[in-house]
Amino acid sequence: MPNPSAAMLVIGDEILSGRTKDTNTHHLACALTGVGIDLLEARVVLDEHDRIVEAVQALSARYDHVFTSGGIGPTHDDITADAVGAAFGAHVDLRDDARDLLAAHYASEGKEFNEARKRMARIPEGATLIDNPVSVAPGFILGNVHVMAGVPKVFHAMVATVLPLLSGGQPLLSQTLKVHIGEGDIAGPLGRLARANPDVSLGSYPFQNDGVYGSNLVARGVDANRVTVVVAQLAKELGVEPN
Amino acid sequence: MPNPSAAMLVIGDEILSGRTKDTNTHHLACALTGVGIDLLEARVVLDEHDRIVEAVQALSARYDHVFTSGGIGPTHDDITADAVGAAFGAHVDLRDDARDLLAAHYASEGKEFNEARKRMARIPEGATLIDNPVSVAPGFILGNVHVMAGVPKVFHAMVATVLPLLSGGQPLLSQTLKVHIGEGDIAGPLGRLARANPDVSLGSYPFQNDGVYGSNLVARGVDANRVTVVVAQLAKELGVEPN
Repeated sequence: MPNPSAAMLVIGDEILSGRTKDTNTHHLACALTGVGIDLLEARVVLDEHDRIVEAVQALSARYDHVFTSGGIGPTHDDITADAVGAAFGAHVDLRDDARDLLAAHYASEGKEFNEARKRMARIPEGATLIDNPVSVAPGFILGNVHVMAGVPKVFHAMVATVLPLLSGGQPLLSQTLKVHIGEGDIAGPLGRLARANPDVSLGSYPFQNDGVYGSNLVARGVDANRVTVVVAQLAKELGVEPN
Repeated sequence: MPNPSAAMLVIGDEILSGRTKDTNTHHLACALTGVGIDLLEARVVLDEHDRIVEAVQALSARYDHVFTSGGIGPTHDDITADAVGAAFGAHVDLRDDARDLLAAHYASEGKEFNEARKRMARIPEGATLIDNPVSVAPGFILGNVHVMAGVPKVFHAMVATVLPLLSGGQPLLSQTLKVHIGEGDIAGPLGRLARANPDVSLGSYPFQNDGVYGSNLVARGVDANRVTVVVAQLAKELGVEPN
């Protein structure tokens, strides 16, 4: 049986103007090769509704899986959710669970959950959310299209979440431990626990907001119990409460 | 009047498998932005005849200029010339001037000009050659499609050659001085001459073949006379014969 096929769609004027280098395609290419999915095409298009709709329709009809990066932030040119919804004829609106995630996040940071930030909770009907351990605003899966962030750190985290669902392996469960500790102090205990628990993968996704820094430590594994145990060990070693 | 539009087509399995990073799209994006041509789309496709034909036809119909990278080397999977020819219905065969360039190059290096290397002289009928100051095998222009090498150093040199033709400026003329001197010894004189002759751009494209190293020094300018004068000065400063 041939490997499943895939395409990448990078969305963003800044890539085509040369202001930003796309590194997400290379990351995805390596990750897909690692799990036996063949990346057969990649495209970069502008932040224009019709271009995105056209590319999503062409690629989702042709390949088993499509991955997009970019255009899911709070600004007016972040139109990926609406365009992907339109490509599938799906209604797009504020979604309660996404809004609640974002509302809680901005409340915890003492920031206003304003109209611009609410845009990031606009999700097409019928989609499944993709967790964002770095900056909360979720991606989503609609049909065979995986809509992910353009920021490489977030894109990488989302790829790590969705790939196990596609490669025929068991679904991967994850738990996140948010800590306000520098990565230099986390690396030692994290590395030791990773070596001692090869069945649970451990990742660190640092963040910095207005001078408050820290990291979301994500444990992923197929056994929920084992994930919980490892997160508890990690919390203990770092001297923080499991959340 | 809107800027002319352009698309990039990267050809190569090695990009999609993650073995190689595509850096040519970013280079082209920056170069086009610099001359007022808008890069509106980029695609990466496999080394497969039908995929290349389809992409070339779609992009050349839609945009003013198309740039391709990859697939013009000597191996069996270098099929870009044939596919671009097919996209335009142009016959593809060994071309005398391209063959002569390559024959002279391999003779000067004491290497056999074998069947594989002759493949690099296969050029669609009606095409214009694009000079390759690094490794001789030429690119070509057919219709609005600019077919260039995947090796970044060669791609950069070819972009530098073709862009002035597109941006409405005067055609740029070039002369190459091949020297067997390390770049560390070239840099000083080259830099001095570049500063003293702002109307002529000077580039160094180093090569290494079986332990023989050197550099092709390319002078580009709109005035053939001035280019010749600067190349002669450069040869004198480096103590070599102008070729």
